[in-house]
Amino acid sequence: MSDPEVLRITPDPSRYAWTFGGVAPLQRVRPGTILELFTEDCFAGRVKSERDLVSEVCQFPFLNPQTGPFYLEGAEPGDTVALHFVSIEPARDWAASTTVPLFGALTATHLTALLHEPLPELIWIWELDRQRRLCRFHAHQGDFTAELPMEPMHGTVGVAPANLEVRSALVPDAFGGNMDTPEMRAGVTCYLGVNVEGALFSLGDGHARQGEGETCGVAVECAMNTVVAVELIKGRSCPWPRLETDDYLISTGSVRPLEDAFRIAQADLVSWLGQDYGLETMDAYQLVSQGVLSPLANVCDTNYTSVAKFAKRYLPAGEPMQGAHRRLRQLAAGYRG
Amino acid sequence: MSDPEVLRITPDPSRYAWTFGGVAPLQRVRPGTILELFTEDCFAGRVKSERDLVSEVCQFPFLNPQTGPFYLEGAEPGDTVALHFVSIEPARDWAASTTVPLFGALTATHLTALLHEPLPELIWIWELDRQRRLCRFHAHQGDFTAELPMEPMHGTVGVAPANLEVRSALVPDAFGGNMDTPEMRAGVTCYLGVNVEGALFSLGDGHARQGEGETCGVAVECAMNTVVAVELIKGRSCPWPRLETDDYLISTGSVRPLEDAFRIAQADLVSWLGQDYGLETMDAYQLVSQGVLSPLANVCDTNYTSVAKFAKRYLPAGEPMQGAHRRLRQLAAGYRG
Amino acid sequence: MSDPEVLRITPDPSRYAWTFGGVAPLQRVRPGTILELFTEDCFAGRVKSERDLVSEVCQFPFLNPQTGPFYLEGAEPGDTVALHFVSIEPARDWAASTTVPLFGALTATHLTALLHEPLPELIWIWELDRQRRLCRFHAHQGDFTAELPMEPMHGTVGVAPANLEVRSALVPDAFGGNMDTPEMRAGVTCYLGVNVEGALFSLGDGHARQGEGETCGVAVECAMNTVVAVELIKGRSCPWPRLETDDYLISTGSVRPLEDAFRIAQADLVSWLGQDYGLETMDAYQLVSQGVLSPLANVCDTNYTSVAKFAKRYLPAGEPMQGAHRRLRQLAAGYRG
Amino acid sequence: MSDPEVLRITPDPSRYAWTFGGVAPLQRVRPGTILELFTEDCFAGRVKSERDLVSEVCQFPFLNPQTGPFYLEGAEPGDTVALHFVSIEPARDWAASTTVPLFGALTATHLTALLHEPLPELIWIWELDRQRRLCRFHAHQGDFTAELPMEPMHGTVGVAPANLEVRSALVPDAFGGNMDTPEMRAGVTCYLGVNVEGALFSLGDGHARQGEGETCGVAVECAMNTVVAVELIKGRSCPWPRLETDDYLISTGSVRPLEDAFRIAQADLVSWLGQDYGLETMDAYQLVSQGVLSPLANVCDTNYTSVAKFAKRYLPAGEPMQGAHRRLRQLAAGYRG
Repeated sequence: MSDPEVLRITPDPSRYAWTFGGVAPLQRVRPGTILELFTEDCFAGRVKSERDLVSEVCQFPFLNPQTGPFYLEGAEPGDTVALHFVSIEPARDWAASTTVPLFGALTATHLTALLHEPLPELIWIWELDRQRRLCRFHAHQGDFTAELPMEPMHGTVGVAPANLEVRSALVPDAFGGNMDTPEMRAGVTCYLGVNVEGALFSLGDGHARQGEGETCGVAVECAMNTVVAVELIKGRSCPWPRLETDDYLISTGSVRPLEDAFRIAQADLVSWLGQDYGLETMDAYQLVSQGVLSPLANVCDTNYTSVAKFAKRYLPAGEPMQGAHRRLRQLAAGYRG
Repeated sequence: MSDPEVLRITPDPSRYAWTFGGVAPLQRVRPGTILELFTEDCFAGRVKSERDLVSEVCQFPFLNPQTGPFYLEGAEPGDTVALHFVSIEPARDWAASTTVPLFGALTATHLTALLHEPLPELIWIWELDRQRRLCRFHAHQGDFTAELPMEPMHGTVGVAPANLEVRSALVPDAFGGNMDTPEMRAGVTCYLGVNVEGALFSLGDGHARQGEGETCGVAVECAMNTVVAVELIKGRSCPWPRLETDDYLISTGSVRPLEDAFRIAQADLVSWLGQDYGLETMDAYQLVSQGVLSPLANVCDTNYTSVAKFAKRYLPAGEPMQGAHRRLRQLAAGYRG
Repeated sequence: MSDPEVLRITPDPSRYAWTFGGVAPLQRVRPGTILELFTEDCFAGRVKSERDLVSEVCQFPFLNPQTGPFYLEGAEPGDTVALHFVSIEPARDWAASTTVPLFGALTATHLTALLHEPLPELIWIWELDRQRRLCRFHAHQGDFTAELPMEPMHGTVGVAPANLEVRSALVPDAFGGNMDTPEMRAGVTCYLGVNVEGALFSLGDGHARQGEGETCGVAVECAMNTVVAVELIKGRSCPWPRLETDDYLISTGSVRPLEDAFRIAQADLVSWLGQDYGLETMDAYQLVSQGVLSPLANVCDTNYTSVAKFAKRYLPAGEPMQGAHRRLRQLAAGYRG
Repeated sequence: MSDPEVLRITPDPSRYAWTFGGVAPLQRVRPGTILELFTEDCFAGRVKSERDLVSEVCQFPFLNPQTGPFYLEGAEPGDTVALHFVSIEPARDWAASTTVPLFGALTATHLTALLHEPLPELIWIWELDRQRRLCRFHAHQGDFTAELPMEPMHGTVGVAPANLEVRSALVPDAFGGNMDTPEMRAGVTCYLGVNVEGALFSLGDGHARQGEGETCGVAVECAMNTVVAVELIKGRSCPWPRLETDDYLISTGSVRPLEDAFRIAQADLVSWLGQDYGLETMDAYQLVSQGVLSPLANVCDTNYTSVAKFAKRYLPAGEPMQGAHRRLRQLAAGYRG
């Protein structure tokens, strides 16, 4: 096996993408490429201290900058892009989280429109101890501190949408986007159905860690240095984003209400067990019902995201998604970062 | 420490409770008692083979029999019952799962009323290998089999409801009931706010295992031999059921739509960190947002149940719920089953 | 036609029913009876001025008193009770509305659990001009006043629930209950499926008027003098409450989320056109889609209620629900109140 | 008053717009212009008989063609466009409705993903009697026919979205779009907040009539000849589409779940009464709660749309939205069509 092609991309801030679709390619890449990417944080780097209120330093719609889009050669509608996360590493030794007025799961929002005044707008600066792989929290009130494991992930990964649409990078939907699932970590392959020629994938929104559901709407946000290995699966569609690890098949659904996001993810998993393991629908429904893990991803974004995980160890040997994850693992093994 | 009082209860089928509330006590118990209980499966034991269709052998409302209710001496509205699961063991070497017409997450139902014909009504008999602690699945179509870990739990645990209500044992709500969370396993303490004198708690609906969300609406259902240690926390209320393990604080919410169940569980967890660890609300909101685990419980019952778990290791030493879990652990340690 | 039997019932406050189910009959009645009923307001008459805060003068669960239950002779599960509202007249020249902390559509609630403080608790006393049939509103701030038509209705009408349940009078569900639809006015026949012997129907929660959706959770609440003509339809079931007027067939659904309440009402209407007008399902689906009126009832109660109305003038002559509304109209015509 | 400028536009099919945003202006117009527009039906005219299945003759994303977009001179973000419907008249003597596989309120869909097979795909051709203003339905099964009033309306009216987005013409959201409310009829003024320079409004999706909720997902679809008078309100924003008639103020909300669409519309109406009639928030909340009409618009599209109507006769004289409706009425009076 020859060494893979490696591209290092640190986009100039003027080239950040703020949408999926509607943006000219930042770079053309071939299947089999490894990308070394810098991604800025969701605040476009503007929240640096507890005084930098999002409502003052950030400017809609310039939130959640994406690195990309990448034009994948040969990708056509009906194909699937496979993006394998080789590594995701915080680019700084701190990260920021905030509350944002009228955004989050435990507050009135623009969509759950109530008559309350907004909750307080606050910022927490988390210290990242990259040696010990810990995130340190300091409470505003009192001297409470806590150390949580650093578990870096990308909140946002997607391709250009179908139906001629252009969507804000804050939105998760069938094209991927701002799914905000902690499952999007190093070691994972993300499958995204191609809607337009070249796929036009991009990613961003690094989180040093995040709770399941992203309750307040904002994670431990930080810039990332991320390595991604890219493949193209020709002639195989993927209606909703799927993830694969060495141990799990993972389906996702992003919509409101949350039970519909759950339904999409679970129905996709049932369908996946049929496609790649030959299970009849009702048998797959039963097996999924007893074996699935269903950690929530986000319950705060424009669409809510639900995740359905199924352990490969319950299944016979198989080549899910035509073996792309296995091949990308091998490709990544040849990478000397 | 003297030996705890131990009561063994195998109710006569004529004494099963089919509701929470509205049933005379099966037994009076004192705080500090250990109960050795038999619980029948949710089918009242009538589904024994792949030919025993629920729609034919079961009769509404005689589904989901509960063992209880127990009158806890001294319990008054405003108090909290603590039920510690010492052990939960399948009483048989097989278990049954089914689809039920117009019930489940991936089908039209009586509440998500559509114009489709019902999905097929099918039964799967799972073999339980209690030595190896495995559940064996056989597909109806083809020769596919799978072995999943046996992880016994109770789908239903509750007290008599507030507001003069009597609720079917198929319903989860603020009084507990049919929450169907895999977290209700051995080692867990379940806290339930008392609504009526004596609390009138009962439990049932054993599952040899269950996926998160209970997608098809039915788990790997089986009769159980279960040991529960009981305590009473005077003067402390508990608006929604909470669970505690050696490692986690766990809040629950049960309502529709699912995002509201999520909100209840997360808001209760924020409130719990305030009550028992002194965190200010916005600080707790931030900490929960970054540290919570949010596995779904059920997305099929009359109300959907969402769970919010927070690791104690992120917190300073504390006595959550006045230390009841710790004391019940000690009580259970004195039990020679 | 002989004169119908007429019973006048003004229950002693000690005999109010606070639940559907779980209450001994107030009175036995025969089909064909006319009932002259007094119903107290939802506050049990305790809110009499702008100083009588619900949170201070009312006591859970003693809200929403019902007049009943009535044991209808001959009623068995599988039958349907038909209640025709001959007249609904305010018993006082004032009515009260309020906000209630953590209750209503535009506020955080116990079920949509958020971190906001409750909205202000306020009371508005409305003057009822029964001559001119107007309700007069006075704003708290400034001198704004408004006159809205008096359109008296009952928020709550129901029977004992199925499945051994007892439900708070604040809940709407398949048994009827607190549906809070402005369609429940004089001239309407309400159909309720019988779940227990004797049906055990009751009613209350008079509103001098109410907006569709009952946005703040409380209508223009007042005591009523109401005349109801009662019939029994043997051998015909009615899974969700239906209403009929001289001009409309009206189906209802009560559940969360609101789209599921909509689905129940619409699917029931499709089914009704099949049962009583012989339309095939897909044809009925099409006809309903183009002809239905869908005014909301409540979006604030434990379950939300959606209404589906279809004009009889679009249909051939028929005898919906076995002609009960027509017969009750005739019965009422013989009543000299 | 001089005669208004009148522009007649029948777009070449190659110039139909399939999205809101992302399309070059079809025409520049000045405030005060009257537009005589032809709009094609949502099938782009391809469904002409009961054999023309949408799944065969239509091609995603080429559904729901819009006439426009129009660049309104002087329109800037923060302004509001006012579109007054002078007349909406069917352009043909027939119209088509269909079921579409996995689309509609009473079926599994791509978003409410279930394991059912799709419902049958059927087409109904409705006859339009433009003299008698009736729509005639013929059932597929049996000889049932029905005549419903012709009540022409536009399902889709919108401007270019905010946040750099481009949205399918099948979507309703804050920018308007496919709201599918029967309120969008002749005599109505529609207010849309401007998000981009020139506003870029367009419209289409004529319905000869539609039930509230558009239950099966498709109305009585037909091409229209429509006359619209256009105004610009400088310096006044409009976060969600509003409508005004001689008799009503109408707010809308479009999102899922349906209760959140309800909340948006009701909260906007509360806010409108504050802005233009000086009512304090809690007083407006009370008044809306007792006076609002809440007919559903659509419960089938990507977002659901709820409508909140309030009768002007309950209010003092006012100049809502700076009197734009009144002025547009006058402008339209000067039009000799």
